[in-house]
Amino acid sequence: MTAGTLRHVADLATPALLVDLDAFEANLADMAAALPGPRLRPHVKAHKTTALAARQAALGHRGFTCATVREVEGMVAAGLGEDLLLANEVLDASRLGPLVEAGARITVAVDSEQTLAAAVAGGVREVLVDVNVGLPRCGIAPERAGWLAERARASGVEVRGVMGYEGHLMMVPDPADRARRTEECMALLLAAHADVGGDVVSGGGTGTYAMNTWVTEVQAGSYALMDTAYTAAGLPFRQALTVLGTVVSATAPAGDAPGWAVADVGLKALGMDHGNPAVPGASVWFCSDEHLTFGGGSPPSVGDRVHVLPAHVDPTIALHERMHLVRGDEVLDTWEVDLRGW
Amino acid sequence: MTAGTLRHVADLATPALLVDLDAFEANLADMAAALPGPRLRPHVKAHKTTALAARQAALGHRGFTCATVREVEGMVAAGLGEDLLLANEVLDASRLGPLVEAGARITVAVDSEQTLAAAVAGGVREVLVDVNVGLPRCGIAPERAGWLAERARASGVEVRGVMGYEGHLMMVPDPADRARRTEECMALLLAAHADVGGDVVSGGGTGTYAMNTWVTEVQAGSYALMDTAYTAAGLPFRQALTVLGTVVSATAPAGDAPGWAVADVGLKALGMDHGNPAVPGASVWFCSDEHLTFGGGSPPSVGDRVHVLPAHVDPTIALHERMHLVRGDEVLDTWEVDLRGW
Repeated sequence: MTAGTLRHVADLATPALLVDLDAFEANLADMAAALPGPRLRPHVKAHKTTALAARQAALGHRGFTCATVREVEGMVAAGLGEDLLLANEVLDASRLGPLVEAGARITVAVDSEQTLAAAVAGGVREVLVDVNVGLPRCGIAPERAGWLAERARASGVEVRGVMGYEGHLMMVPDPADRARRTEECMALLLAAHADVGGDVVSGGGTGTYAMNTWVTEVQAGSYALMDTAYTAAGLPFRQALTVLGTVVSATAPAGDAPGWAVADVGLKALGMDHGNPAVPGASVWFCSDEHLTFGGGSPPSVGDRVHVLPAHVDPTIALHERMHLVRGDEVLDTWEVDLRGW
Repeated sequence: MTAGTLRHVADLATPALLVDLDAFEANLADMAAALPGPRLRPHVKAHKTTALAARQAALGHRGFTCATVREVEGMVAAGLGEDLLLANEVLDASRLGPLVEAGARITVAVDSEQTLAAAVAGGVREVLVDVNVGLPRCGIAPERAGWLAERARASGVEVRGVMGYEGHLMMVPDPADRARRTEECMALLLAAHADVGGDVVSGGGTGTYAMNTWVTEVQAGSYALMDTAYTAAGLPFRQALTVLGTVVSATAPAGDAPGWAVADVGLKALGMDHGNPAVPGASVWFCSDEHLTFGGGSPPSVGDRVHVLPAHVDPTIALHERMHLVRGDEVLDTWEVDLRGW
């Protein structure tokens, strides 16, 4: 988008999503080495950006995981519809059938007769049976997976296999404990797979990508950009995403009262379900709609720029229209976050 | 937008923001009775929707409060630029000057020499001095407000008065305590005003609209649509905003294990800084990116619709592209949330 017009970070209006290009490329390369080609089915919900997905595809990961119909539509429109898994149940698949007709390969997760019927009615031709492996969310009970696969085949759709997401284990602090519990979950998934059949056993995420050796493909997404929650879980990927802010107000210490500064990075620029973001070298006090109040460290001046590290990458990105790829002070490219909404 | 094409709530794709038209209109009428005309300067950050602001203007509130330059631009574009207060400090006001040139009235909050210089450089002609009345965020110390006003006048801009937001008191549970502490804050603001001069003393919010009798205008915004946090604070306004979801998965109780259901209203559809949303008659377990898991009550079926009550209205709306005005099962109109982003 910005070819020929090199810009500097200092010229960006704030708040602005920044991607450290070197860290991002290192994350992609490290993951591609660990899970080459189709062993990784990157989840686009983490970044909602087709330009970023194209980088993942260029490294050999040509199948993608989506969480919404909008994400599937956008990936197809971007020419990335070779093998898309909507890893989520929907009751209205009517926007998917025309994409399949036009040549996209779209597989939809089903965990009930109703979601199977919706997929069939919408013109979807391939499904995975979504299996509950311990996270109380979507997924049919393992022992009923074979029954649903039979219903699906009787409905005339292809059953490609199973998926089961051990999302409740992603942040388990001790890796050995995380691995042991992942194995238990995957035993449930493999038992279901024995009843269901098909080539695909899909699951896993950034927190279990290295230890989930039972699935045929891992659905990791956060690894590309990272956040403070996953960093705290001890993963080897680098924090590539920050939100650039400007200090709009600063109050000096007075007597015993500490000073503080306010940056223009607030609740509308940050996913907050994992708590406050971090500001390196400072202590975050609280966030308001358009403000982040922080203290500690060397007091910044009004006009200074700060890099804010989000606690949860996915909902943070969903609040932004674009992300800027930077190396040092140079903005090398700008990508639209084009898969937002529903 | 939907004139002549009456739709039903059942036909909406989910998740979808719904506004109960009767509750919304009652909230606007009640507030207009309490704070008529210019006594209220509605804050658009709460709803980010010019069509909604036009309803507030139609009731006599023709001056508005904004939190971002984008909000100011959008309000001017919508013909609502009669008297806009950017109640926030900015270091880049360059997009505001052209709007002023074109006839919009725009007043900007300043609390430092730097933000004053930015306003002047950007072509802004009127400012308010933002005073810290106890919330550790923006605002100059009350005793220095007069000094900044003097600097502003020396820079050639008009000083319209002061603003000071007692945001830390909005959720104080006991109204008497909230009122007492509001009085203390406003004493600071009035002292600053005595030094600054001008006609405007701006402050307050939905939590203190009835008790802040010291300001000349109240900056309330949340009252129009409400959320569970403000409802819990005992305010008389009605919950007009819900997020409509579809149950995409349901797991029946098994033995001693309770059942649960999953709706398609997750972290990307909900501001989470005030905690989980509420589902009437049910118990919310947790939210994921695109999912809300809840239990209790009579177990819903896959395909059922649920109304989710957000805990914080402002960041919830910032995640949605549009809101639908409904009465019962009828969708009467759809408004674009057109002031999002920066």
